[in-house]
Amino acid sequence: MLLMRIGAPGAEKPVVRVDEGHYVDVSDLTADFDERFFGTGGLARLAEPVAERVATGDVLPFGDVRIGAPIARPHQILCIGLNYSDHAAETGAAVPSEPILFTKSPNTLIGPNDDVRIPRNSVKTDWEVELGIVIGSRTSYLDSVEQARDAIAGYVLVNDVSEREFQQERGGQWSKGKSAETFNPAGPWLATTDEIPDVRDLDMFLDVSGVRRQTGNTKTMIFDPYFIVHYLSQFLVLEPGDLINTGTPPGVGLGLKPPVYLKPGDVMELGIARLGTARQNVVGPR
Amino acid sequence: MLLMRIGAPGAEKPVVRVDEGHYVDVSDLTADFDERFFGTGGLARLAEPVAERVATGDVLPFGDVRIGAPIARPHQILCIGLNYSDHAAETGAAVPSEPILFTKSPNTLIGPNDDVRIPRNSVKTDWEVELGIVIGSRTSYLDSVEQARDAIAGYVLVNDVSEREFQQERGGQWSKGKSAETFNPAGPWLATTDEIPDVRDLDMFLDVSGVRRQTGNTKTMIFDPYFIVHYLSQFLVLEPGDLINTGTPPGVGLGLKPPVYLKPGDVMELGIARLGTARQNVVGPR
Repeated sequence: MLLMRIGAPGAEKPVVRVDEGHYVDVSDLTADFDERFFGTGGLARLAEPVAERVATGDVLPFGDVRIGAPIARPHQILCIGLNYSDHAAETGAAVPSEPILFTKSPNTLIGPNDDVRIPRNSVKTDWEVELGIVIGSRTSYLDSVEQARDAIAGYVLVNDVSEREFQQERGGQWSKGKSAETFNPAGPWLATTDEIPDVRDLDMFLDVSGVRRQTGNTKTMIFDPYFIVHYLSQFLVLEPGDLINTGTPPGVGLGLKPPVYLKPGDVMELGIARLGTARQNVVGPR
Repeated sequence: MLLMRIGAPGAEKPVVRVDEGHYVDVSDLTADFDERFFGTGGLARLAEPVAERVATGDVLPFGDVRIGAPIARPHQILCIGLNYSDHAAETGAAVPSEPILFTKSPNTLIGPNDDVRIPRNSVKTDWEVELGIVIGSRTSYLDSVEQARDAIAGYVLVNDVSEREFQQERGGQWSKGKSAETFNPAGPWLATTDEIPDVRDLDMFLDVSGVRRQTGNTKTMIFDPYFIVHYLSQFLVLEPGDLINTGTPPGVGLGLKPPVYLKPGDVMELGIARLGTARQNVVGPR
């Protein structure tokens, strides 16, 4: 299934995507795609009624409705740093020997086509196309990497927007440059794991104002999604609906010579195979 | 007012403390002390009915009920690092020129007298008595430090439990050593700002198994609570009910020569003037 949330910000309803033009409304079956939904077997409960509604033509047209993030605000957004060896190289950092963990404020989550706002006093706002993992069940101390497969609800396209000065030059702990409002566009949809034949072989790209900046494939990840979920579960408890951004391939603004950063009027277009595409206009500070 | 939540884990009811032995039940007035409560003027709504109930003797005895954290699981737990100059010195770090931000997973929050569990594979679990700030309203881009006063709902005693190897030797981003389950005892109560004559002059202590380890006063903070809230609001959006741990005074295990860390059977007893005391038994890994 491809889960989506559509409607005005803060008033999205949960739907299941049928095709480019149509969806099944499931707002009578679940209030939202949130911690309760994922943690109580919500995905399994949806399968049969959604199939029935598709079979009977009980579908609706998207029209020009706004698309929200495909999950409700999660309990936490965890991020893995420097997880593509060639991205580590472009930032001048060593390839990490184990996953680097940092976080984003959960209220950074916005829809895939919403505006990204440059923070006040920012001169180094940057882009990062990433594969996002959505956790499906409460997860702690997994015994094996293989067990991580069952802990994952699905995957989502995200943009881990970053302010490099705030991240690197204002104390050294990265979360400060990762948590400005609008800094986590996600979607258009969450693809459940059965929709993705091999999460370790997905092409991805990001363009800024028509210029291809990032080209990558999840097969060059240093730590793959199953490794990451198993690893994190040794340090903290993952809750259903938690989002894990798994790192970005080469081509961020920080890595260009000279560096290039976002400015108002820029447009970011990004995509990952099977996870759709997104388009964010960059706007100036409030 | 002194807000408390009492009852079994996950089923706490919101109450207001009257004295050591008695409380006013306010569970008919609010479902919880959560984001919605603080963000919709809940504190102001409580004042009159609570005063009435105290006046008419409509109070109940605590008995031996469990005390939970005084706030529901927040949207985020933010932490300020190395915020006491003498603590910075004991860790060998430079005094920071601006606040260092890191985070804890929100599901680390537990009651003030609940067990603290040493994580698997931990050899450096450590203590940190801290003043916690609870945010009262959605807060972004405060114009002045003075404005931060109105953004704060109150204060709470917390223990920012930390695993030093996970924090410092496993990639360098601190959140990895701050987010194990049970790592954020809080309470016994949230004191609203009117209960605290001067938040910049509160004595605090922490004992481990009867040995005084930390002695401090908030007057030696490098960045005071108003500065911190104003500062953070420039980088991210604070939500009502968010918790900010403001750093620890000297005397953590990492700073002792040789270092001393927690082991199963240890007992931590801690307190801050006007914010009560807490007592946590240390237990071994699951």
